[in-house]
Amino acid sequence: MSAKNIVVEKSSYIPPSRLPVEIVERKGTGHPDYIADSISEAASRELSRYYLEHYGAILHHNLDKVLVVGGQSSPRFGGGEVVQPIYILVSGRATTEVVSEGGRESVPVGPIILKATRDWIKSNIRFLDPDTHVIVDYRVGKGSADLVDIYNRRGSYPGANDTSMGIGYAPLSPTERAVLETERLLNSEKVKKELPAVGEDVKVMGVRKGNKLTLTVAMAVISRFVHSTEEYLSLKEEVKKLVKEHAASITDLDVEVYVNTGDDPSRGDKGGLYLTVTGTSAEHGDDGATGRGNRANGLITPFRPMSLEATAGKNPVSHIGKLYNVVAFQAASEICGLDHVNEVYIKLISQIGKPINQPLLAYIAINAPDDVLARVKHQAEEVLAKHLDRINVLWESILKGNVSLF
Amino acid sequence: MSAKNIVVEKSSYIPPSRLPVEIVERKGTGHPDYIADSISEAASRELSRYYLEHYGAILHHNLDKVLVVGGQSSPRFGGGEVVQPIYILVSGRATTEVVSEGGRESVPVGPIILKATRDWIKSNIRFLDPDTHVIVDYRVGKGSADLVDIYNRRGSYPGANDTSMGIGYAPLSPTERAVLETERLLNSEKVKKELPAVGEDVKVMGVRKGNKLTLTVAMAVISRFVHSTEEYLSLKEEVKKLVKEHAASITDLDVEVYVNTGDDPSRGDKGGLYLTVTGTSAEHGDDGATGRGNRANGLITPFRPMSLEATAGKNPVSHIGKLYNVVAFQAASEICGLDHVNEVYIKLISQIGKPINQPLLAYIAINAPDDVLARVKHQAEEVLAKHLDRINVLWESILKGNVSLF
Amino acid sequence: MSAKNIVVEKSSYIPPSRLPVEIVERKGTGHPDYIADSISEAASRELSRYYLEHYGAILHHNLDKVLVVGGQSSPRFGGGEVVQPIYILVSGRATTEVVSEGGRESVPVGPIILKATRDWIKSNIRFLDPDTHVIVDYRVGKGSADLVDIYNRRGSYPGANDTSMGIGYAPLSPTERAVLETERLLNSEKVKKELPAVGEDVKVMGVRKGNKLTLTVAMAVISRFVHSTEEYLSLKEEVKKLVKEHAASITDLDVEVYVNTGDDPSRGDKGGLYLTVTGTSAEHGDDGATGRGNRANGLITPFRPMSLEATAGKNPVSHIGKLYNVVAFQAASEICGLDHVNEVYIKLISQIGKPINQPLLAYIAINAPDDVLARVKHQAEEVLAKHLDRINVLWESILKGNVSLF
Amino acid sequence: MSAKNIVVEKSSYIPPSRLPVEIVERKGTGHPDYIADSISEAASRELSRYYLEHYGAILHHNLDKVLVVGGQSSPRFGGGEVVQPIYILVSGRATTEVVSEGGRESVPVGPIILKATRDWIKSNIRFLDPDTHVIVDYRVGKGSADLVDIYNRRGSYPGANDTSMGIGYAPLSPTERAVLETERLLNSEKVKKELPAVGEDVKVMGVRKGNKLTLTVAMAVISRFVHSTEEYLSLKEEVKKLVKEHAASITDLDVEVYVNTGDDPSRGDKGGLYLTVTGTSAEHGDDGATGRGNRANGLITPFRPMSLEATAGKNPVSHIGKLYNVVAFQAASEICGLDHVNEVYIKLISQIGKPINQPLLAYIAINAPDDVLARVKHQAEEVLAKHLDRINVLWESILKGNVSLF
Repeated sequence: MSAKNIVVEKSSYIPPSRLPVEIVERKGTGHPDYIADSISEAASRELSRYYLEHYGAILHHNLDKVLVVGGQSSPRFGGGEVVQPIYILVSGRATTEVVSEGGRESVPVGPIILKATRDWIKSNIRFLDPDTHVIVDYRVGKGSADLVDIYNRRGSYPGANDTSMGIGYAPLSPTERAVLETERLLNSEKVKKELPAVGEDVKVMGVRKGNKLTLTVAMAVISRFVHSTEEYLSLKEEVKKLVKEHAASITDLDVEVYVNTGDDPSRGDKGGLYLTVTGTSAEHGDDGATGRGNRANGLITPFRPMSLEATAGKNPVSHIGKLYNVVAFQAASEICGLDHVNEVYIKLISQIGKPINQPLLAYIAINAPDDVLARVKHQAEEVLAKHLDRINVLWESILKGNVSLF
Repeated sequence: MSAKNIVVEKSSYIPPSRLPVEIVERKGTGHPDYIADSISEAASRELSRYYLEHYGAILHHNLDKVLVVGGQSSPRFGGGEVVQPIYILVSGRATTEVVSEGGRESVPVGPIILKATRDWIKSNIRFLDPDTHVIVDYRVGKGSADLVDIYNRRGSYPGANDTSMGIGYAPLSPTERAVLETERLLNSEKVKKELPAVGEDVKVMGVRKGNKLTLTVAMAVISRFVHSTEEYLSLKEEVKKLVKEHAASITDLDVEVYVNTGDDPSRGDKGGLYLTVTGTSAEHGDDGATGRGNRANGLITPFRPMSLEATAGKNPVSHIGKLYNVVAFQAASEICGLDHVNEVYIKLISQIGKPINQPLLAYIAINAPDDVLARVKHQAEEVLAKHLDRINVLWESILKGNVSLF
Repeated sequence: MSAKNIVVEKSSYIPPSRLPVEIVERKGTGHPDYIADSISEAASRELSRYYLEHYGAILHHNLDKVLVVGGQSSPRFGGGEVVQPIYILVSGRATTEVVSEGGRESVPVGPIILKATRDWIKSNIRFLDPDTHVIVDYRVGKGSADLVDIYNRRGSYPGANDTSMGIGYAPLSPTERAVLETERLLNSEKVKKELPAVGEDVKVMGVRKGNKLTLTVAMAVISRFVHSTEEYLSLKEEVKKLVKEHAASITDLDVEVYVNTGDDPSRGDKGGLYLTVTGTSAEHGDDGATGRGNRANGLITPFRPMSLEATAGKNPVSHIGKLYNVVAFQAASEICGLDHVNEVYIKLISQIGKPINQPLLAYIAINAPDDVLARVKHQAEEVLAKHLDRINVLWESILKGNVSLF
Repeated sequence: MSAKNIVVEKSSYIPPSRLPVEIVERKGTGHPDYIADSISEAASRELSRYYLEHYGAILHHNLDKVLVVGGQSSPRFGGGEVVQPIYILVSGRATTEVVSEGGRESVPVGPIILKATRDWIKSNIRFLDPDTHVIVDYRVGKGSADLVDIYNRRGSYPGANDTSMGIGYAPLSPTERAVLETERLLNSEKVKKELPAVGEDVKVMGVRKGNKLTLTVAMAVISRFVHSTEEYLSLKEEVKKLVKEHAASITDLDVEVYVNTGDDPSRGDKGGLYLTVTGTSAEHGDDGATGRGNRANGLITPFRPMSLEATAGKNPVSHIGKLYNVVAFQAASEICGLDHVNEVYIKLISQIGKPINQPLLAYIAINAPDDVLARVKHQAEEVLAKHLDRINVLWESILKGNVSLF
């Protein structure tokens, strides 16, 4: 076990729910930063699948720099149109050439990126048309790989080539859950069916002060479904009610909900309401970039330890900035499930030159009564060790989309 | 009639079929220059329709600068793929904003361009997938129009704001017809059905020396339909036969046909044959630009007078560089249909500040016996005058796609 | 004072130097993320100056989305060259048009961005030539402002239009200082003079475990100054020595220094060393993006509370994501200077619709003995209130470059 | 001699000066199409020099697709500014990689293109600042060359790999000379010194009808030098006078000169005059593309035979579309210098697979009395044969800039 350098200690963190104030944010599906993360990751997955299928291994790539440049639109009650498309630039590096005995083969990186981007948009943002509302471009640095090397390395743990780290914790505080689930609710199939006017660009900010939780929802409204300021305002009321009900089912906090606080209803669809043609603010000037949104557990929690690494777009077999964050959150969650454990933090730091399942330091901080801590210490070590040893198959779940990344 | 400044004279041109040598070229549907012309024109048409529908008039625009930057591909017998998409940049100017009593409205120029481009590709190049083989971008200068002015000007002839000119002639020489029809044949539905491997990128060069016509066909072959060098060579033979038969039905010249003369069959699908995944050479490094291909009658005829103006992409209501070339070819054709007229050339030069149906000079050169010339002179004038007076409704045919432009 | 909602409490944070482990990172001047931040900010400053000079006020803009796409280079001992330029895309929004009695005026946003970018490169990265090593492009959403409104609003505190927050703390731990100063040292005029081969792209990672601090320096070496593997290795030794000496002057920790741990000297300048032509890894495939690097105090401290907002490129008069982080760090630093205060954290949360000097919550956590805390509480409030009230002139220092932003 | 397939015949062309009407155009230095041609050619030259210096031979490249996308500007009396830069996209193909015994070397194609473009702008358009008025980007298809092959092929005549052709004629008609020299005059050092307000974007259109020649000059005026409508109008008068005087020194035709006929002086610098900040209309919405401007002799002569091939940007050692046009004009000029020869046309058609000094057909049409023709026939053949045999060193003059290309 020593190769994993796991240290278990009593946590010195005060759980956020016991702090006087909390602030938590989630950027939802249609937020420009979320779009950027999603396209990074969709492109990485599609490319990984291609590499696997053609070369039996996921080759080196890193597409964690996607820029979403906002377009221009003219929404109006009952309709409207995009007048200038969103411009999406996918950048990063990839293995563009594979050398084998048979010669050099080119990898269709560009077409793969274009397809992944279009497919993600089509599956996730109902009214954003990849054919006419979006320009997708890419600039990806080339690289080559030797097939012989790839075969020889298969199966083993890749070595860390950088000092990097990952952080995870569990459980979510009630405020955190409320923020996360509010967005998930508003982007659920059910709500999209009942209230189709609710756009995918939903940002939720939760501020808890003592016992009072304020949830502020910024929600793009889809103009084709709304025909008057009254309809718009009534939609806001419905959303407010839904969110409040849901929050009440999670927490005993005193919840207040605000929706689209910047509205000026007197100006109607002349810019006074948060109306959009497509459901994302990217249609009108809002930009997004990979790594600028949610952390691996889907939240921005400024008062918790956080890694600044983008998890999206990085290759899922060797990039520590991606894998260690996932492992830390997953292991923290499992350890937190042990009897009488209140809260768990995990911090992993890589060791340059060592296999990635052997970190320089793996630090588990457990909030639990002393006797519990003594009892679960060893279990906790085992859980984390297991997750570290499974790091070389984590890509399978990532490719299936079963892992929370942002 | 004098306002039209029409002059009819005996032609001093020797018909090209009587010259010792002729050289004629046609770039077909999938040629990068033809693609650029087509996208310019498709975008102009789609935009014109939008203007008409929303504002009752075709507003100012000029999209005659499209650049098609070649991609990269790996064709191989029975398959292959595009590894780097073609990049298409549509540039020019358009009316992006319309000012009316109700305020300023934005015109969705970008989405219109994207849609027109995609639609053209889908309808014209069977195996070029606009979703994954092509990146479409645009950079269009903005302009605004006042709706009141537009209404006031409707119906009248716009004024010429530049000295520009158009040239047309009729009839085509047998060599010219052979070149034009060879491409039309190879891109006909019939041939595409019988020989689906014949790609849309067909370039035909005709060189006549005395009585001998050499037709050199450069034809992209679609790799998925061809499984061996033998199949490829046999396809070439079939095409050669088809072309020869068709030419024989047009002309008594001694016709020789060459197909893909640059092939090196010994290298097979490792670069020795003109194989493509998509049917256009733009997939692998060949670039195209608006205005660099065929003239308004669909041909490049270096020994005939030619205008260098691109007809594609220009607005069809007022741009002389577009309209005068069309009028000149159409009127020449009609005049040439008069009894015993052998050949007609028409040259039109605009007069700055005058309505476009009143050129500075309208010159008709007729090749005919003197008595015929004397007889048809007045008719010829009338024909041209009629075409000039119809110039303000020519856009209707252009928008319907009934006018040859390139 | 109540309008500022300031709460002072005893800190529940354990100072990082007393935690068993710390991890701290700084991306230096030539790091692609730092370049992106710098260009965002340089463009914002240049634009702010233009607005001030022409319209008497800094108009709305947000250029916090710059993407630096890595190029390609061939460094070699004693020379080498960039073979594919770095591509920089500046994106965001700006006031592109100002409406006044005299009509509409356009703001030269593009030329300002190009100039700011070039100037920053020339002043900061000695061997990166903006003429031939870099392509600078921009895509900025347009906006218009009415001069009358601007005059009316001048001087007052702008209102918050979003829930956003800022976090600051003081003092730096010895590990943090060591990391920050190591980079500052290696990018100092002195070191650049003595060891010109040290490139601007210096990334420092500090990992403290108990009493042992490991500083890992990744440093681009400029190939023209190094003629052999030996020279390169001896440069690394000199740097190691310098860094170790400097660290020893700051801290009693047991310091170990590693430089360019990924090197494989046996491969020499064929890819085995961290050689660059220009001093930045952006020359060869490393990408950067605004907001992905250092926080406002110049460090990435994953175990400390951090804001994810990019400070760079945002307008310095009203953007909370920029201003609150600066205020929090500056006020924390000043409060920390009070007698016997050990550590201070400040968290500021904006209140939508309220002037930005009146946050929803201003939370000061002080680590100090209880008696000290009781004594300084009021002073601390006053310090923060002062900084909040000065927030409307903070832009002056920001424009002068006197404020740490990343 | 037979290998050159030269045929000499009596010309059937009527010299243009004896036709009832002529129309001739020249696009001058600052015209967007001329800028595109120039950048194509400058990039090709710079690249050729690099290849020569490093590999002893000019490697394959073709940069004949440059697109100049117009910007936006606000000129005003005494000043003004560019508000949106011109965007220049250089596209085509080049040898980006050279394989030798020592391995693979990359060619710095991008930096070479950027440098060539900037240098050309700086040397040719006084007030167009490449740092802030222009964005230069490129998209060039890659290719590789084997050094061994290159050495083996050096010195010999490359083979034609396409059917292509060139056309030339001599002498210029008086109208043609007047058009060409008018532009040369207005862009001469002398005029730029005396009338610095005359911008580089000068387009001259000459229309001769019988004995009357109308020269229409469209000339960008540089706003910083002009302070009122009066000054502007007086500049136009001076230019008119200069042009008229010069034309009178060339020809006996009755010359009329118009300058900037589209002006509406009543609107002054609010769009009524042809004012520019930089001297080129590309600053405000006018686009340009390689190959859309002047033919190899610097003129557009629609009534003369013309090749549609762009000469600019093509490699000067093997591209027939470039070389045959140059050879045809140069040889025609020399033959036309023979005693009593009135006019000469040369048409060259390449033969696929044959060395480029052995055309399929080399046709010389001479306008001369029969006895003269009989006498000079052989000489004419020799002259053309000499030019064809020198085709493999023509690149030297082209690289020195001694050859008229557009």
